[in-house]
Amino acid sequence: MDTRTLGILGGGQLGRMLVESAHRLNIKTLLLDAPGAPAKQINALHDHIDGSFKDAAKIKELSQRCDVITTEIEHVDAAPLAELEKQGFEVWPSSATIITIQDKYVQHKHLAEHDLPLPYFIPIDTPTTEALEKTGAELGYPYMLKSRTMAYDGRGNYAVKSSTDIPAALEALGDKPLYAEKWCEFTRELAVMVVRGKDGQVASYPAVETVQENSICKYVYAPARNLSSELQSAAQKLAREAIACLPTGAVGIFGVEMFELPGGKLLLNEIAPRPHNSGHYTLSACEISQFEAHIRAVMGLPLPETIGEMKVQHCVMYNLLGEETIDVAKNSLSVEGASVYLYGKAEMKKGRKMGHINIVGSTPAEVDERLARVLGKKEPKRTPVVGIIMGSDSDLPTMRPAAEFLTKFDIPFELTIVSAHRTPERMFTYAQTASARGLQVIIAGAGGAAHLPGMVAALTPLPVIGVPVRGSVLDGVDSLHSIVQMPRGIPVATVAIGNSTNAGLLAVRMVGMGDLRVREKMEGFMRAQREEVEGKIEVLEKVGWEEYGLKK
Amino acid sequence: MDTRTLGILGGGQLGRMLVESAHRLNIKTLLLDAPGAPAKQINALHDHIDGSFKDAAKIKELSQRCDVITTEIEHVDAAPLAELEKQGFEVWPSSATIITIQDKYVQHKHLAEHDLPLPYFIPIDTPTTEALEKTGAELGYPYMLKSRTMAYDGRGNYAVKSSTDIPAALEALGDKPLYAEKWCEFTRELAVMVVRGKDGQVASYPAVETVQENSICKYVYAPARNLSSELQSAAQKLAREAIACLPTGAVGIFGVEMFELPGGKLLLNEIAPRPHNSGHYTLSACEISQFEAHIRAVMGLPLPETIGEMKVQHCVMYNLLGEETIDVAKNSLSVEGASVYLYGKAEMKKGRKMGHINIVGSTPAEVDERLARVLGKKEPKRTPVVGIIMGSDSDLPTMRPAAEFLTKFDIPFELTIVSAHRTPERMFTYAQTASARGLQVIIAGAGGAAHLPGMVAALTPLPVIGVPVRGSVLDGVDSLHSIVQMPRGIPVATVAIGNSTNAGLLAVRMVGMGDLRVREKMEGFMRAQREEVEGKIEVLEKVGWEEYGLKK
Repeated sequence: MDTRTLGILGGGQLGRMLVESAHRLNIKTLLLDAPGAPAKQINALHDHIDGSFKDAAKIKELSQRCDVITTEIEHVDAAPLAELEKQGFEVWPSSATIITIQDKYVQHKHLAEHDLPLPYFIPIDTPTTEALEKTGAELGYPYMLKSRTMAYDGRGNYAVKSSTDIPAALEALGDKPLYAEKWCEFTRELAVMVVRGKDGQVASYPAVETVQENSICKYVYAPARNLSSELQSAAQKLAREAIACLPTGAVGIFGVEMFELPGGKLLLNEIAPRPHNSGHYTLSACEISQFEAHIRAVMGLPLPETIGEMKVQHCVMYNLLGEETIDVAKNSLSVEGASVYLYGKAEMKKGRKMGHINIVGSTPAEVDERLARVLGKKEPKRTPVVGIIMGSDSDLPTMRPAAEFLTKFDIPFELTIVSAHRTPERMFTYAQTASARGLQVIIAGAGGAAHLPGMVAALTPLPVIGVPVRGSVLDGVDSLHSIVQMPRGIPVATVAIGNSTNAGLLAVRMVGMGDLRVREKMEGFMRAQREEVEGKIEVLEKVGWEEYGLKK
Repeated sequence: MDTRTLGILGGGQLGRMLVESAHRLNIKTLLLDAPGAPAKQINALHDHIDGSFKDAAKIKELSQRCDVITTEIEHVDAAPLAELEKQGFEVWPSSATIITIQDKYVQHKHLAEHDLPLPYFIPIDTPTTEALEKTGAELGYPYMLKSRTMAYDGRGNYAVKSSTDIPAALEALGDKPLYAEKWCEFTRELAVMVVRGKDGQVASYPAVETVQENSICKYVYAPARNLSSELQSAAQKLAREAIACLPTGAVGIFGVEMFELPGGKLLLNEIAPRPHNSGHYTLSACEISQFEAHIRAVMGLPLPETIGEMKVQHCVMYNLLGEETIDVAKNSLSVEGASVYLYGKAEMKKGRKMGHINIVGSTPAEVDERLARVLGKKEPKRTPVVGIIMGSDSDLPTMRPAAEFLTKFDIPFELTIVSAHRTPERMFTYAQTASARGLQVIIAGAGGAAHLPGMVAALTPLPVIGVPVRGSVLDGVDSLHSIVQMPRGIPVATVAIGNSTNAGLLAVRMVGMGDLRVREKMEGFMRAQREEVEGKIEVLEKVGWEEYGLKK
């Protein structure tokens, strides 16, 4: 594919996964890190270089034995890289990119100068009590005190809740270059992987939701849960803009972290110029992993716009930290959709990232269930994929067969009362959140004016099945016409009057479109129906029409 | 996960992919093969053993440095393995398994003795003209002459078309131990990967279709195309039975090749006691790859029954042979769903397996298109996922909007005439093959008695949308009632009379259940409908109701 050798500064888990991807492309890699580093364990193509990725002499030695240099960590000394660039050596991402990113104050200033949204932040020239009090006066309390450099996994951040916190804050961070950020009341954290080629083109992966515990990333949900498609697009766009505004030479994969605020506003948090923990899910869930995307970018191989496409519908990544690793990893071996990736680290330390587990599934519910089992929780609740709603509890006898058939086909569903006329707000909320909550089909039963199915169909992109419920007058023909005669543009899949059996079976067929096991069950059900009739034919032939049905 | 070291006989591409899986589980592997073998390139945990995996002394050396031994090739000398077993050493699969499998005549005899279906075969004691003529008299011509040992990729097989071929057949295979097989007129070749644990439990992957060119596997379609669910289950069951009947110690992954005959009969072809080319698709398409399954089996880790589940809907594997490798691999980098796996082989030889490409997609059509682009073919045809059918060409004006909306949403469809009453056989065939041909939904329009939607629904497990077409009398209410009032058990999703727009949009919503991009497009469409009305509201407010609509 490419006969050049790629030198990598750092051989931790990120380097290890980069090397794995490079192997699959027959691209040779050469590592600079301590002996036995995780990445070195899986690369016997060379004697690697032992030493620190911060050591200028070692970096020089690396450059003499490879054609291109990249890094798996931003906390490197950029000076020797700049020196190599001057001599015409390829370094991706460039030293200028690393310099812009590794000092978070410089990074934020750069992004702000390009009109990108960030929490309000100010520099702190000298960390004194007076300076921090002045900061408090400007930003209000609480505010976030941050180290400009060498900050990761929550280290280097201090929440200053009031002026009385200042001595402790100085104690914690006073020896570091600092800046301060206005307190940001975010709803949750999102992240987007972006890859940028040598031509400056950028492509993004889906926006994911990162969940931290003790400031360390613990879970990553891909795509982010309950995120509207508008916000999903907006988050990817913001991430691409953040990477597109970086200096020339910003080539490779980048992790872009952001905050989602109430109301759906997005603010950038920070950027990492390398593969990122929030992108590990891509190994199991995407057509091309973040690691291969990085290798392709720095080696100048194609980066189609679609590189970030997911090949499965949902994935959750779970970080294995310290002592829990072996137990949780072993659990995962018995859970469908789970695959474990251990990093080959020699020493197990508290909180150390030892590996991760990716869990794929076809609905958010399915990955939640599987995650619960990986974590040793028994019988987790299955999230419904079909919603059965009806205008009134008096419709329940009519709607019950739909629920019974979904149970028979083992398809998780919810059943509740939603009335178009008596609970219009509830109907709006139900329909508008249905897709994001993981529902795939809605069955709505209604009698008389029977507006529920059509109104729900107007508020969701999901298919809606309407069941006309027979009332005391007009034999249900009123409801049938009300449900089936929808205007062009908003369809309702209508079944026979009172026939919620068929509504349930139609929902099963729809779920079966994407699930072969369900489709096979439907074939089995149809076979059983046929055999039942064949049984009756046999009896009819045996006993004759005269006797048939007269005695049991 | 396991602190023991796994020794592997052979370090080719299969060994390489085994080692990659072992790394992810932190399981140490140690290789016996020539220096620089593909698997050795990606394992720097030890100095490996240089030498032949057939050399008893080297196998002994390997055993002294590891805890368990497995093999990536069946053409090994089983005697030293048997010796190790006697000393209590773990060898998986066992020497008894290898002995049973590596001589294909012994293998077939074993399977036949367990009442498993095979092409009829007979031994040939001494390969003479007389013996081969006697064989021809018994089996008829053509028959297949086969080497009992060391046969792979078509080598060791000779088709004896008539008695005049016998001298050439002896020339080709006369120096080998032989047997002969009755000519098998198969429709195609299928294969199933089966994993067997130390407790004897077996689990299977889906049955795939293997397509050979010049007797070398070139394409693997997973799951096998147009295979009924009954045959899919039957193939997996047959494969599991073949592996379950092997002697104790048959532990690990096995490739089971079989023939599909006209009418759907299945015959076993042969078994490989190791990862298999027909299972490479599992790296991209399954929750757990065949390689990890093998590692788990031989190390005694969990093998849940669901281990073979696919996580994507469809996959095709394409083998990269010899000189084409670089060009095709480079092409693949620009095609969605394609991922390339190169083996690190030093020398490019004609026909040599240099790597493979896995292409995933959500329909058989999608993987076909992507494969065509990987192979440099432009603009391949997209296979339809929606079928629009109508009873008569006079229904076309009514059905046209459905086709227009599917076009607008970029969903591939087919449109044709199928009449329940005038072409009943065509209707049967259309409905019964729809699912296997890749259709996901059927839209059927009919007027008058309007039996088409319901009859089609009775013959397919797919969802069927019915469009009542308005006739010259009864205003279409006849068709509406005929389509919607289906008996319990067979649903038809009915839309308003003449409203094929909604049938098209309902099909789009159904496809969107499993395709987020389609769902987002539907949201955009609904937004545009809203905005169109909002535009009218604005105009109405501006010009007033008195003037509205009177002038353009």
